[in-house]
Amino acid sequence: MDGILIVMSGFSGAGKGTLLHRLLNDYDDFAFSVSMTTRSPREGEVDGKDYFFVTKEKFEETIKNGLLYEHATYCDNYYGTPREYVDSKLKEGKSVILDIEVQGAMQIKEKFPDTLLVFVTPPSIAELKRRLEKRGTESAETIAKRITRAKEESKWIDRYEYIVINDDLDTAVKEMHDIVLAQRFQTKRCGTFIKEIQNELLSF
Amino acid sequence: MDGILIVMSGFSGAGKGTLLHRLLNDYDDFAFSVSMTTRSPREGEVDGKDYFFVTKEKFEETIKNGLLYEHATYCDNYYGTPREYVDSKLKEGKSVILDIEVQGAMQIKEKFPDTLLVFVTPPSIAELKRRLEKRGTESAETIAKRITRAKEESKWIDRYEYIVINDDLDTAVKEMHDIVLAQRFQTKRCGTFIKEIQNELLSF
Repeated sequence: MDGILIVMSGFSGAGKGTLLHRLLNDYDDFAFSVSMTTRSPREGEVDGKDYFFVTKEKFEETIKNGLLYEHATYCDNYYGTPREYVDSKLKEGKSVILDIEVQGAMQIKEKFPDTLLVFVTPPSIAELKRRLEKRGTESAETIAKRITRAKEESKWIDRYEYIVINDDLDTAVKEMHDIVLAQRFQTKRCGTFIKEIQNELLSF
Repeated sequence: MDGILIVMSGFSGAGKGTLLHRLLNDYDDFAFSVSMTTRSPREGEVDGKDYFFVTKEKFEETIKNGLLYEHATYCDNYYGTPREYVDSKLKEGKSVILDIEVQGAMQIKEKFPDTLLVFVTPPSIAELKRRLEKRGTESAETIAKRITRAKEESKWIDRYEYIVINDDLDTAVKEMHDIVLAQRFQTKRCGTFIKEIQNELLSF
């Protein structure tokens, strides 16, 4: 059975990055997605492992040919998710989690309705603020900006299918895994088996 | 958090009864549903444990007052699922599984959209036939009837949200449990938490 394409969104400070790394580390049935970018490789970065490094022309051609799940511009560089790489992992039966903000998530879901949308949130906004302040690297202004953004993002939570409350990391990792496991038994993902059973019954 | 109301259907011979007993036995987070009936108690049967034994008048009053999840007539006796009992279990946080045929399942889903519909099937119809024959208690005619019924039921599988293939019982029990666990994280079941987060954000 093919793996499941999962789009994970959530407030900045919800711990999405850590959650993703733990899932990839703890479970064999998940695979990384390698992004494509036009920015230059930093020292030690390996093409095809950290990113697929391409020229601006190549990236724009890839967009034009519909070969990206989504893309965005950041600091004058393109970043995107190549479909070919992700699809090959899905075909191997691995589930692939993309960490994408709300608007991109909605676009992917519209084009690929089988995508699983999961929203990651801290147990409360007070806790989110505490986490952002604890980092010690962000000004009060930046934190205020993040909270304003969270306010906007929170309007979209209902559009996600699942919510993972990242209070205790171990619990959140397990919950995320449980959610993905259960998807395999959705009738909409078992079409081939259902057809087989129905056809077999026709022969009786 | 409230438990989840689960309606389980499936072909006769799929092993629903065994699956249900194992779930109730292996996991604390499930509860039995006690049916109401107008038939007389058999020796050893306890009112409120095996069934709620009531008169025909009492049963019809219960129907009229909308206090049953579903009901059916079998051999001139009524059988039904009392809402009060099931709801009290759900409030305790226990999930309740009802073993109900396709038409009843559709009726419950229409009235209570949060009901989880799970279809249980053997790995193939050949295997279903083998199991029915192995029982040794059923005539070729009865088996043929069950297969004809399965043909009818199989048209409804797509209306179920999940499918559990009961090949190895231990695996099926675990899959069923995984499915129910994951439901708790559906955004549609986390409305209170989502509202809290949204309200908290408004205060920033």
